[in-house]
Amino acid sequence: MTTTATTLKGQPLDKPVLDAMLRRRLFYTPSFEIYGGVGGLYDYGPPGCSLQANIVDLWRKHFVLEEDMLEVDCTVLTPHEVLKTSGHVDKFADWMCKDPKNGEIMRADHFVEAILEARLNGDKEVRGQKVEEKDDPKKKKKKAKSEAVKLDDAVVKEYEEVLARIDNYDGPQLGDLIKKYDLKNPATGVLPSDPVAFNLMFQTSIGPSSNLAGYLRPETAQGQFLNFAKLLEYNQGNMPFASASIGKSYRNEISPRAGLLRVREFLMAEIEHFVDPQGGKKHDRFQDVAHVELVLLDRDTQLSGKTETRKVAIGQAVKEGLVDNETLGYFLARIHLFLEKIGVDLSKMRFRQHMANEMAHYACDCWDAELLTSSGWVECVGCADRSAYDLSVHAKKTGAPLVVRERLEEPLVIEEWQVDIEKKKFGPLFKKDAKTVETALLATSQEEREKLAKQLGDTGKISLDVTGVGNGKVEVGSDTVKIEFRKRVENTREFTPNVIEPSFGIGRILYSLIEHNFWTRGSDGGDEARGVLSFPPTVAPTKVLIVPLSSNAQFRPHIKKLSQQLRGMGISNRIDDSSASIGKRYSRNDELGTPLGITVDFQTLQDGTVTLRDRDSTTQVRAEESKILDAIKALVDGSKDWERVASELPKFEGQEVEIATR
Amino acid sequence: MTTTATTLKGQPLDKPVLDAMLRRRLFYTPSFEIYGGVGGLYDYGPPGCSLQANIVDLWRKHFVLEEDMLEVDCTVLTPHEVLKTSGHVDKFADWMCKDPKNGEIMRADHFVEAILEARLNGDKEVRGQKVEEKDDPKKKKKKAKSEAVKLDDAVVKEYEEVLARIDNYDGPQLGDLIKKYDLKNPATGVLPSDPVAFNLMFQTSIGPSSNLAGYLRPETAQGQFLNFAKLLEYNQGNMPFASASIGKSYRNEISPRAGLLRVREFLMAEIEHFVDPQGGKKHDRFQDVAHVELVLLDRDTQLSGKTETRKVAIGQAVKEGLVDNETLGYFLARIHLFLEKIGVDLSKMRFRQHMANEMAHYACDCWDAELLTSSGWVECVGCADRSAYDLSVHAKKTGAPLVVRERLEEPLVIEEWQVDIEKKKFGPLFKKDAKTVETALLATSQEEREKLAKQLGDTGKISLDVTGVGNGKVEVGSDTVKIEFRKRVENTREFTPNVIEPSFGIGRILYSLIEHNFWTRGSDGGDEARGVLSFPPTVAPTKVLIVPLSSNAQFRPHIKKLSQQLRGMGISNRIDDSSASIGKRYSRNDELGTPLGITVDFQTLQDGTVTLRDRDSTTQVRAEESKILDAIKALVDGSKDWERVASELPKFEGQEVEIATR
Repeated sequence: MTTTATTLKGQPLDKPVLDAMLRRRLFYTPSFEIYGGVGGLYDYGPPGCSLQANIVDLWRKHFVLEEDMLEVDCTVLTPHEVLKTSGHVDKFADWMCKDPKNGEIMRADHFVEAILEARLNGDKEVRGQKVEEKDDPKKKKKKAKSEAVKLDDAVVKEYEEVLARIDNYDGPQLGDLIKKYDLKNPATGVLPSDPVAFNLMFQTSIGPSSNLAGYLRPETAQGQFLNFAKLLEYNQGNMPFASASIGKSYRNEISPRAGLLRVREFLMAEIEHFVDPQGGKKHDRFQDVAHVELVLLDRDTQLSGKTETRKVAIGQAVKEGLVDNETLGYFLARIHLFLEKIGVDLSKMRFRQHMANEMAHYACDCWDAELLTSSGWVECVGCADRSAYDLSVHAKKTGAPLVVRERLEEPLVIEEWQVDIEKKKFGPLFKKDAKTVETALLATSQEEREKLAKQLGDTGKISLDVTGVGNGKVEVGSDTVKIEFRKRVENTREFTPNVIEPSFGIGRILYSLIEHNFWTRGSDGGDEARGVLSFPPTVAPTKVLIVPLSSNAQFRPHIKKLSQQLRGMGISNRIDDSSASIGKRYSRNDELGTPLGITVDFQTLQDGTVTLRDRDSTTQVRAEESKILDAIKALVDGSKDWERVASELPKFEGQEVEIATR
Repeated sequence: MTTTATTLKGQPLDKPVLDAMLRRRLFYTPSFEIYGGVGGLYDYGPPGCSLQANIVDLWRKHFVLEEDMLEVDCTVLTPHEVLKTSGHVDKFADWMCKDPKNGEIMRADHFVEAILEARLNGDKEVRGQKVEEKDDPKKKKKKAKSEAVKLDDAVVKEYEEVLARIDNYDGPQLGDLIKKYDLKNPATGVLPSDPVAFNLMFQTSIGPSSNLAGYLRPETAQGQFLNFAKLLEYNQGNMPFASASIGKSYRNEISPRAGLLRVREFLMAEIEHFVDPQGGKKHDRFQDVAHVELVLLDRDTQLSGKTETRKVAIGQAVKEGLVDNETLGYFLARIHLFLEKIGVDLSKMRFRQHMANEMAHYACDCWDAELLTSSGWVECVGCADRSAYDLSVHAKKTGAPLVVRERLEEPLVIEEWQVDIEKKKFGPLFKKDAKTVETALLATSQEEREKLAKQLGDTGKISLDVTGVGNGKVEVGSDTVKIEFRKRVENTREFTPNVIEPSFGIGRILYSLIEHNFWTRGSDGGDEARGVLSFPPTVAPTKVLIVPLSSNAQFRPHIKKLSQQLRGMGISNRIDDSSASIGKRYSRNDELGTPLGITVDFQTLQDGTVTLRDRDSTTQVRAEESKILDAIKALVDGSKDWERVASELPKFEGQEVEIATR
């Protein structure tokens, strides 16, 4: 599935050049680098921090405000019991194996993947085929050890099939593959140990007595589920509704990869949309998005070993049953529109359906929005149908009523076997065990009750299994218990809502967005390519660069006034009055993705005009300050594009010469 | 220092009423409540979350954008070594003691405080004096055990002095107090154990092999310090500059108190302002704030056992040396202005200087902005001068150059003792120890060198202590080493910046803000008081409530259009079309702090006018939609107040009758 990555303009993406630029401009940097760094931890510098804030701000507007979602902020620290109930303590794990010789710990699926890819590449070398480079230092290291050995065609096919399904193997299966294909660790030449499950949650203990085990949450979802009853009440009992949360989550990755794509601490934005499971999970506003066309890669296509996608309107996809229901479809379309809005390259986006054994333990269906990057297709947004799983398990564990009670328009008549207990006799009969026996009796199913009723009629008593009471068998006579088939009228309906969960990995989106908006501009006559990040103005870290032509003190009041005016308009801006040439200063800000630049020069002092430069075309216009400010406002709020502005204001060609000679 | 708390209108603050309201409106709620809750962990519901977001947003505008600070987002997970170096592993602890009988773990200072206060209250009871209630469930529990026993006047005075200095005792001193005053745990009647230090950081391990110990950061500051060199470069070498960070921090409190004031997970907003220690730490913009009057409680006043404050302009305070320097003073004033802007009651705010033994291990001076609440004065913002402490220790540990290099206008001529080593002889002489001996030699001070030079002249050799080499003594002859007094010319100056750190506890500010803006409105004729939160529009969770007079379907299009128009203007709003009376719906939103309400009624259908209600006065105006929208915009951006709006638009008195009969 790896594709040679390209820039926004279709140029081959030179990853080292991009990485150097992101580092130079402090988009992000390894955390604790002066202490040698820690794998999978990154800090965002000013432009990365601002880009992240803008993405989050748009997310909040697009989802939370637009749909009146109930935003909550729950704690990261989570006690053991909650995550035990949710299944994370038992199931939230990756398979890891250990090299018995040097003690190296490796993620089993990554290990199998790396060795098989190395063998395939060795084979390609022999056959004289082009070897595609995957951007992954971890794998590259192993690849270096691979040798040019020719493989049988059948073996090549087998390896490729294994790689296509690599996400679907469990630990024992990965162990079998290691033995079957004799996958030795290139570093030591020995087979790694059998894979064992490694829980991905960071553990800690809460309070001074060290007896309350806790974890850092692996997702923001659980806090939202636990508050369900309060949120429903806050929403005045109305269904459906959604809660939303933006916050850090943690996964103790076995082998974090370079960059922001697999990290141990990350910002998530998650929505839990609670919906009545009856009535096909329709959505009120589905018609608003039915026309939106998505690129889909469904489960069946993948099972047949293919990756062909299909572009289809979501209305059609739901109609065909390709996407299960309107609510799931609605959110897929909304996710598509959000990613489009922030500047994702639509030609590098697809929605991939999870295969059955690939899904998280709580999901019953899941589609990922994947973005194509130099590391291949990256899962950036998951949209899972968690059904009633979470609310049910927490309600069962705690006894809290995580349900919706709805008044029925027409009362419901139910016929069923009912159990009556004569408390006055029952209590003295069982003494301290009375409660346990009663619970066991009331927990019987309709089928069991029918049998017990017959037993009671036939023998005048029933015999019941009750663990922990006497020898585990209990007898109750017909003077103490009655079991009868009766009618009951229900005026309310009680149900556990299903949950549709769009879950966004902000760091992955941010990194993919950078790659999608990166390109290089050849300098006129020179051979050095200059990097540009063509972010849309809404997400760009800074909207406007203000530069004085030189360090002449006369420019200062103008610069300061412009900056204050822009700030007053809510438009972030930055002054660069360093001694570098104007061209260099613009280049620096092209790398930062700043869409607009104002230059104050000597003409400004005479007639009050300034120039405005467009990052992408490098063309400039010149007009009075007030007109330029109006143009900037229109460009930033999206009501005009540069072409329009350029047609309305006089063109200016003064400084571009200098820019080209950077 | 405890004062009977009051509401915004000077009414006695009924804490249980406020708590019930905050709970009912889901401002915040104990985390994991259906699992029994975990002390010191709280979730924010929709209004709390929005209030928090608005405070953070204003903070970012007031500090980061206004002063071009470099915002960063660093990880919470922090490896052991970093926090060992910063001193937190050794010193970031509270003193705890254990009841040997029932195993109860208590914070030693809280324990001493609670028992002495209980005794003082018992004494007051006997004397017939009023006992003031402190809002602290932990203490109340212990108070219940106190008995009415009269104390000698001298003992009362002694206890009061201890309580006034309770923050200043270390563990052994607290242990002495427990023994001296025979402070038994009321629950068991026995003395608790001697206090031991309990580190407040949550510990975890990073990566699969469990050998990299880490902590959840106790402050956001360290990440900013570690990135200092990169930030300085990003800032093109310019000094002074500030970094800023908004994020979660963690403290494993021994005994978290009820509410948001002492919690284990909290949002901080921190600024690290890096400044040249030479030249008195002046600040460019100090004159802009010199007139701002602050209420100060200085160190000397507190040492004399008093709490009298003094209102003084910050310009004067710095001039007098009461506040050490302009930069510290500048930030105190900016903090004051920020708290004023978000709606803090200025009559309940003061700046208190830390006493020497109360300061964090890294601070050399510190002032807290404290807000008066029902729990007494609460530290909400700390403003510490951390000097060069952090940058120095990290530079020393890692060898990273966390310094500023400045070109000197006039080269500096330095006369000093210099050491020259004859490498060709030195190497063969000491072989594998050469590097160690050289390091020891170059680490000598000027005084030592002067002595060594004399020794070398007198005896032809020097004798040097070098741990780990031979018997710890090393001799070097004058053929191998020279020590001479010479001149050296420096063209650059290198220095480690000092750090002024304003550090904001957002949760504490948020809670204090709620108390400061809370009051109750007596219902006309009824006896039930109705709660109001008079937040300024800028921080109010929702700006506008939109209510239709009834559930009549004809109102729906108007309601929807109004909501969309407001959203387009960036003004958060909420529709309440529930079946409750208009009065009830307004009351609910008074409790949520929504400043404005629009009602759509039958007249709207005829003439397109709507009414606009002011939360605080409950007065209403009526005008065409467009005029009402303009008024809302002006009220929300602060360009008009309600009085002005009410004087410009026709008054309306229709629905208030109904509101009063809620």
